[in-house]
Amino acid sequence: MIPPPHPTPTFSTQAAPAPTLDKLQGWLENLVAEIRPARREDPIAVRARLDQLTKPVGSLGALERLALRLALIYGDPPPPLRRRTVLVLAADHGVAARGVSAYPAEVTAQMCRNYAAGGAAINAIARAVSAEVVAVDVGVAADPSTLAVASRKVRWGTADLSAGPAMARLDALQAIRTGAALVDERAEQTDLFALGEMGIGSTTSAAALTAVLCCAPPEAVVGAGTGVDARTLDRKRSIVSAAVKRIAPGADPVSVLAELGGLEIAALVGVALAAARAQRAVVADGFITCAAVLVASRLAPAVLDYVIASHRSVEPGHTIQLRALGLDPLLDLELRLGEGTGAALAFPIVDAAGAVLREMATFAGAGVSGPEARP
Amino acid sequence: MIPPPHPTPTFSTQAAPAPTLDKLQGWLENLVAEIRPARREDPIAVRARLDQLTKPVGSLGALERLALRLALIYGDPPPPLRRRTVLVLAADHGVAARGVSAYPAEVTAQMCRNYAAGGAAINAIARAVSAEVVAVDVGVAADPSTLAVASRKVRWGTADLSAGPAMARLDALQAIRTGAALVDERAEQTDLFALGEMGIGSTTSAAALTAVLCCAPPEAVVGAGTGVDARTLDRKRSIVSAAVKRIAPGADPVSVLAELGGLEIAALVGVALAAARAQRAVVADGFITCAAVLVASRLAPAVLDYVIASHRSVEPGHTIQLRALGLDPLLDLELRLGEGTGAALAFPIVDAAGAVLREMATFAGAGVSGPEARP
Repeated sequence: MIPPPHPTPTFSTQAAPAPTLDKLQGWLENLVAEIRPARREDPIAVRARLDQLTKPVGSLGALERLALRLALIYGDPPPPLRRRTVLVLAADHGVAARGVSAYPAEVTAQMCRNYAAGGAAINAIARAVSAEVVAVDVGVAADPSTLAVASRKVRWGTADLSAGPAMARLDALQAIRTGAALVDERAEQTDLFALGEMGIGSTTSAAALTAVLCCAPPEAVVGAGTGVDARTLDRKRSIVSAAVKRIAPGADPVSVLAELGGLEIAALVGVALAAARAQRAVVADGFITCAAVLVASRLAPAVLDYVIASHRSVEPGHTIQLRALGLDPLLDLELRLGEGTGAALAFPIVDAAGAVLREMATFAGAGVSGPEARP
Repeated sequence: MIPPPHPTPTFSTQAAPAPTLDKLQGWLENLVAEIRPARREDPIAVRARLDQLTKPVGSLGALERLALRLALIYGDPPPPLRRRTVLVLAADHGVAARGVSAYPAEVTAQMCRNYAAGGAAINAIARAVSAEVVAVDVGVAADPSTLAVASRKVRWGTADLSAGPAMARLDALQAIRTGAALVDERAEQTDLFALGEMGIGSTTSAAALTAVLCCAPPEAVVGAGTGVDARTLDRKRSIVSAAVKRIAPGADPVSVLAELGGLEIAALVGVALAAARAQRAVVADGFITCAAVLVASRLAPAVLDYVIASHRSVEPGHTIQLRALGLDPLLDLELRLGEGTGAALAFPIVDAAGAVLREMATFAGAGVSGPEARP
């Protein structure tokens, strides 16, 4: 079950011949060009509307800022956001063979079966908040027929990023396209997407990407992940430090992604880009998903108009990411699980923010007095 | 509409003769005696169960601590908590005539009509999170027939706490009983209660109660409320400082409550106590509701086993209250509205915490490997 140490042949997502690098590159440029800033409304007009609703001005704090963002994405008032989908993308990391996780690599495949059976944390939480979980194998190092989830496998796990590039540029582009396709197939029936992931070894990839894309020292972005001991943490730090040094200054985002992995992160880049193109808000989860948002935002800065940060993870690098992205998380529950759990927990808050603009009465309409002038 | 400056005759909640002080005192002692610590389960056994579920140990952070608390209240696994009720208790404060709020006192009555019409923030948010709003006049200074909400009026607003006691001890006890009755009537059909309130001038009462019950300097607990200017804030501080000095050292919680008000706070004390007796979790909102929780916890410390802090308000005194109560809020959204809005936003998170214990598979059951031993 342990991923092979060197790249395996690329699996196409289709029966058709695999697209060429040029074709995929053109496809990505086209996707990026189609992403528009979220400006369905004039933000000043929406802010004025918020201030006419029966509540002290600004008294709903972050919920009002979120309501404003939803109005810019969906229009004012925003529609109910009840059709919620958590995309849990699973893939293996070759670097797991170096012992960077508290868990063995086969847990990635085992958890796919757990998602299919409905027994994981994201299944329980999604049911509680009325959301659908769509778990997809985008790069698990196991036979798809054994995983019980949809398979869009790009390849059987990444290569070990401590020994060389995690994947070829073609793989990274294929994975981005795979993620984008998952959104394109669902955008009509989905009001709100969440980014979720599973993959033993993923925080090592995410830390390396974050160090490069946030210009942060590796020791500041490497955390305990699922809960590693001090020796494992040291090994993780050394691996990330060494890998980051291979990135040339000014390298383009896709080449950074290919060098450092992982396949689920690349697919989540595609999810974020395609959700933004479809003008759907996309709720980020923790450290891994925000690494994907970082890559997506370097390709298309306007993607950030559509990204909502759900929570602040315990992983130290997550706060560095959030600051770099200019995103304020809604929850601070000391989560460090992934799977989209934090994003799903934020769904009802996102919907409630829209309900404020959609359903609240105005001072004038409800016959409620406004603030008094005082001598 | 401005509340009268001196106590008005007490309104009984029933057609029957008003109970005597002794009888109400006995009733409260009995209620307090019936509150049991939440210990339906052995916490060590629940913790062990949490650690067998398919997630890294402790990786759901505050959600796991909440799941443990729910198991102690409801049993392990906790049932779904879908029948959620926000009690929005409204009352007027005589001190509003001193100009301590940005809004005129008649807004309390106007907002009651807004709750009935479904146009307030709590109505919009409660619909988004599938909760019921029950707005009740427990002391609005207006004819109940004009308010469109249920009336359990104890009296027409409190007296001005800057001039003397906000209410008689009999009033405070009647209000506590009124709040308790609201829970008793609903406990069978409700899984989860939230504390909500409305009353112009309420943060002045809450600040005075907090200063006394948390031994905090008045300037540390007086905040901007609905958004007052610097001169109003100064006036509010002076009023709170002077009122607090009237409290004798060692005064009992009910006499502190009667001296400083308000009627909705007293009724919320009854809600918290009765919810704890009924073994229902009760979600606190912001500064006003936590003033009620402070009073309730001085009467019956075990009530805190049932109280869940939903959010951290912008009001500076709220953080002082939370520390004194030993409660960690789930949300930090810079809310300062009241009405139970923060509590309602936390409902789905509370339910999701229970779902973790109720629905997640174990490592053994799902065939997922646990952490590896490393050399």
